[in-house]
Amino acid sequence: MIGIFDSGIGGLTIVREIFKQLPTYQITYFGDTARTPYGNKSNETIITYALQDTEFLLAKGAKIIVVACNTASAVAAKILKKKFPNTPIFEVITPAVTKSVKTTKNKRIGVIGTRATVASKIYEQQITNLKDKLTVISKPCPLFVSLVEENWADQPITKMIARKYLYSLRHEQIDTLILGCTHYPLLKHVISQKMGKNVALVDPAEQTALQLKTYIEENSSVQKQLTTNNEHQFFFSDIAPHLTELAKRWLGTTIKPQLHHIA
Amino acid sequence: MIGIFDSGIGGLTIVREIFKQLPTYQITYFGDTARTPYGNKSNETIITYALQDTEFLLAKGAKIIVVACNTASAVAAKILKKKFPNTPIFEVITPAVTKSVKTTKNKRIGVIGTRATVASKIYEQQITNLKDKLTVISKPCPLFVSLVEENWADQPITKMIARKYLYSLRHEQIDTLILGCTHYPLLKHVISQKMGKNVALVDPAEQTALQLKTYIEENSSVQKQLTTNNEHQFFFSDIAPHLTELAKRWLGTTIKPQLHHIA
Repeated sequence: MIGIFDSGIGGLTIVREIFKQLPTYQITYFGDTARTPYGNKSNETIITYALQDTEFLLAKGAKIIVVACNTASAVAAKILKKKFPNTPIFEVITPAVTKSVKTTKNKRIGVIGTRATVASKIYEQQITNLKDKLTVISKPCPLFVSLVEENWADQPITKMIARKYLYSLRHEQIDTLILGCTHYPLLKHVISQKMGKNVALVDPAEQTALQLKTYIEENSSVQKQLTTNNEHQFFFSDIAPHLTELAKRWLGTTIKPQLHHIA
Repeated sequence: MIGIFDSGIGGLTIVREIFKQLPTYQITYFGDTARTPYGNKSNETIITYALQDTEFLLAKGAKIIVVACNTASAVAAKILKKKFPNTPIFEVITPAVTKSVKTTKNKRIGVIGTRATVASKIYEQQITNLKDKLTVISKPCPLFVSLVEENWADQPITKMIARKYLYSLRHEQIDTLILGCTHYPLLKHVISQKMGKNVALVDPAEQTALQLKTYIEENSSVQKQLTTNNEHQFFFSDIAPHLTELAKRWLGTTIKPQLHHIA
């Protein structure tokens, strides 16, 4: 099956996109909720965790690995690819970067994310590596995660906070905005409203699922290895009381979270 | 000196109170920012972390330990006291519980905290253990932490969110409210405004510092062991870019954060 891991629950937005774009394939999810977030940890620690997460999914029978976490994508994806050369490994940053570079016309791209993602400058670096003469403007929006987890996406408060956070970006004349945090696609309607119609939003979850879909369609040998049923499994290293409720809301289906304890 | 540990930066509100009430004693702070928050971790893990944090402070020369973290106070304080019988160990829950029971007249106490603290029911249990026939009403306010860290304490948005969170508590006729999260004292003015003059706020940081002060004054042998200077030290297991700025805002003084890497 397809194995997906994240530092927590945010990666369920990637699951949602995979359900949408690749509805027939079985997935196994691992959310490292006991050690979330990865964003404020050292590279050494993040790499150790990402290796453990990947090994767990491979032991469960994963034939493809999707790194749903922005931080682990930035810090550990290259090392995972080296360490597991026979397993296709996908991450969320490259597909979003590629799409944003293709989309922008005025060469001004915005990036929003957690404080840790913005401080890492990973999107800026990758965009500039891919194509120079592009301007990247970043803005951390730390409250967006809590607002999504509170189920306040449609509340007036969320619109006010979005206006406050996006104010400076709106005056930067960007025409493309990357939603650089797994939770943000759930605020897409609010962000889109505040940024206006002339700004294209790039959703890394959507782009990653699309890249995955293309890859599977083009590689019949991989396709044959994947199980096609909906007996999906969801593992977490810690199960908080509101986890099932959040997952139901985001995925539109009830999951049975299983505990995978990581020491 | 006095050793204080917390799962992150929130415990600096206890430092603030100790500076206020015991300005002459040297303190050493350890914030486990690399593994924050403790609230969603298993008891076993929290105990392991609390033991490591305490051992680090003892090795640095601490003669008194203050557990600033609500979760570690609830889960690990008893075990720390057994493990280190010769070191006075203070935690934040008992002083707040004692104060709230003394304060309430109508026997209705409210508790606000993170989702994890509220789910643990630790305040309810301790209040009921101390005195029965009291009603405790709890309400998680997860966004308060992010609002404080954004320095939005005085923004209209924070007032709106406080109104939303505290609405149900206001209708529960409580006369005493425990601020059951290290960050919340920094929103005291907003919470007080929303709850009205008839609700007494109990600040665990203030009560813990008061208990500590009384203890030191009454124990001259301990008092003699403590260093009286202001060469305070601040260790963190991870140093995020905005840490120094936050600490300056909260403590009113610049700190030099030192890295203490925990594997």
